[in-house]
Amino acid sequence: MSRIVMKFGGTSVADLDRIRNVAQRVKKEFDKGNEVAVLVSAMAGTTDQLSKWVEELSPMHDAREYATVVSAGEQITAGLLSIALQDIGIPARSWLGWQIPFKTNQLHSAARIEEIGTEEIIKRLETGTVCVVAGFQGISKDNRITTLGRGGSDTSAVALAAALKADQCDIYTDVEGVYTTDPRIVPRAQKLDKITYEEMLEMASLGAKVLQTRSVALAMNHKVRVQVLSSFTDKPGTLVVDEDEIVEKQVVSGIAYAKDEAQVTLVGVNNKPGIASELFTLLANENINVDMIIQNETEDGKKTDVTFTVTENDLEKAKNILKTSNSVEYANLMTDRNVVKISVIGVGMRSHAGVAATMFKTLAAKGINIKVISTSEIKISVLIDVEYTELAVRALHTAYGLDGEY
Amino acid sequence: MSRIVMKFGGTSVADLDRIRNVAQRVKKEFDKGNEVAVLVSAMAGTTDQLSKWVEELSPMHDAREYATVVSAGEQITAGLLSIALQDIGIPARSWLGWQIPFKTNQLHSAARIEEIGTEEIIKRLETGTVCVVAGFQGISKDNRITTLGRGGSDTSAVALAAALKADQCDIYTDVEGVYTTDPRIVPRAQKLDKITYEEMLEMASLGAKVLQTRSVALAMNHKVRVQVLSSFTDKPGTLVVDEDEIVEKQVVSGIAYAKDEAQVTLVGVNNKPGIASELFTLLANENINVDMIIQNETEDGKKTDVTFTVTENDLEKAKNILKTSNSVEYANLMTDRNVVKISVIGVGMRSHAGVAATMFKTLAAKGINIKVISTSEIKISVLIDVEYTELAVRALHTAYGLDGEY
Repeated sequence: MSRIVMKFGGTSVADLDRIRNVAQRVKKEFDKGNEVAVLVSAMAGTTDQLSKWVEELSPMHDAREYATVVSAGEQITAGLLSIALQDIGIPARSWLGWQIPFKTNQLHSAARIEEIGTEEIIKRLETGTVCVVAGFQGISKDNRITTLGRGGSDTSAVALAAALKADQCDIYTDVEGVYTTDPRIVPRAQKLDKITYEEMLEMASLGAKVLQTRSVALAMNHKVRVQVLSSFTDKPGTLVVDEDEIVEKQVVSGIAYAKDEAQVTLVGVNNKPGIASELFTLLANENINVDMIIQNETEDGKKTDVTFTVTENDLEKAKNILKTSNSVEYANLMTDRNVVKISVIGVGMRSHAGVAATMFKTLAAKGINIKVISTSEIKISVLIDVEYTELAVRALHTAYGLDGEY
Repeated sequence: MSRIVMKFGGTSVADLDRIRNVAQRVKKEFDKGNEVAVLVSAMAGTTDQLSKWVEELSPMHDAREYATVVSAGEQITAGLLSIALQDIGIPARSWLGWQIPFKTNQLHSAARIEEIGTEEIIKRLETGTVCVVAGFQGISKDNRITTLGRGGSDTSAVALAAALKADQCDIYTDVEGVYTTDPRIVPRAQKLDKITYEEMLEMASLGAKVLQTRSVALAMNHKVRVQVLSSFTDKPGTLVVDEDEIVEKQVVSGIAYAKDEAQVTLVGVNNKPGIASELFTLLANENINVDMIIQNETEDGKKTDVTFTVTENDLEKAKNILKTSNSVEYANLMTDRNVVKISVIGVGMRSHAGVAATMFKTLAAKGINIKVISTSEIKISVLIDVEYTELAVRALHTAYGLDGEY
């Protein structure tokens, strides 16, 4: 007997038939004798509709009211799934964020979970009730509804699994698992049986939209065994686990790409000590995350060019800050949205040389110019023109021996 | 300065434009210096959609899960209206049933309000916040969402007005007030400026679908001044008040009709003492409300025919009970759905004779056969064939001098 958390995303509960299908999947686990908690997203499209209404009424809306409106989506699914389970003879009940409670801080539209009440739910799990929990939502100290931010249902699920000390957290979605790269670009992409938390974290934050980054970080911190799998097939998915669970490590596990990057170049910056710190503090103070950075001195050392990337969403804001700043002086400000960040990821890199060289050689052979490079212990990222995205991803997938049968 | 409760029904908040319109109406009251609490229904169609999903998943569903699902409708409107108010510069915040709290009993899909927490909301009203409250919902002792049953938002509004000791409770709807009868049948029907609680109670329970019966009873008990008015015009509506507020009482204030009645006749019942009590206890035990009753003895006094009415919804259930009962013996069971109950209502009846005679004479003159008669202090009801509905209502409206300009 295991205690498991099953999480179903919006496409898995998009209509009544799919909710019935989810109920059957839950029944299967329950009938094995498992203790089952189920975490649900809103029906596909609901969150978008509700957010759109809020936006249309007031672009500068109160985040507490936004959370009140949008959390209704998961509330509906939690109730409906409980009814569907009861209808096939499974004892079930729903819990909303405030009922568990999922206590969060007061950032109402992007809240962080602080504490999860588990006493009642554990008692019910132990007496054979399937506990259906509305994802994505919590309650703040002032007794108001909060939401965890888009994709927060994954985070709810992993947090609940950690709090319940669950043996596994199964994230059901519309793909069969984590792939070596996006199968829409590379038909020969292969599903990974296992991947480490660190790799998954890079994959998630680099644009492979399978699991939300925060949920992976949380799983890593609490050593929650996460499985990503499809709610539409019966195939096993991808297990996200600790590195020591993977005996034979791949040098490279996957290739990710992120098109929502924008490049900013400041030409002819006065090269005084601390200028980089000044520049990036300026942006950090306005909550702009800077990702890749390069800096070249000009020949005489008096001027420097600084290039960095921000998300496309932050680009306008970043430009405004730089244009109105008095502290950073430069000759010219150039921006480019037509860029993509391609990343090669693998824990095996730590013990293997030549991974970067292979990447640069492969791209050069295809005539692709690299604009910026950044690396970490387990990944190498390059910024290139967006029009080369598919070409680059395919070439790298082949170069690192990731191609499967087709 | 007054403290008022404004309640907006589903059609008044059916889309974003209408929600903006409601915000403007609230602003008008707020700008006069009033303390304003607003109670909202779900957007028109939402409750039906959510109920339909629940029904489709399981006709015999858990009422607690039903309440969880359906209460999401008012939750969404409460948040959206708060946002619309803030957007036009009015300080506003939403409260859900569990946040107020609206404490109810545990009849989750038809709960009764037991206690309303008012401390926080009064504090906020006094400091100039418009308090937007989700109607139709509450919370039970076991910390789960309850709903008050269809039309419960009127009841929420009146209960809140009573708890807040509000000066008035304005029920905004899609009609301009309470009419002497249904204007779709009688174009000369007139809007009433004032009506007593007792009359409104009869009008509501007899099929004039303006205000929910429970809300009128509650208003009467707590002496809440209720106004029914349209959210689409600026005309004054109908005030529902205590009898002593109406100086010149009409003998007859209105004509109501109810088509959802069904007639049951038991022919040849063994006429032993206590047989009526036995029969109606049998039905009452199964929660079937019996409305009109007549009983005729046969000539020899050994048999009796009993005729009564139940709502159409209860007819099948009532037939089953009577067919399987051992305690009530009869020769034949006949039912008729094609009946309508027409009622003449007015507090002035108490001091005026001849009201009933006028009714019978008027119907007789049109050749309409009366099947059953029942009376109370302030109303006379008759059961007739449904095909005479419009003819009877029009004739009575004229006979009692209710016709207005056309």
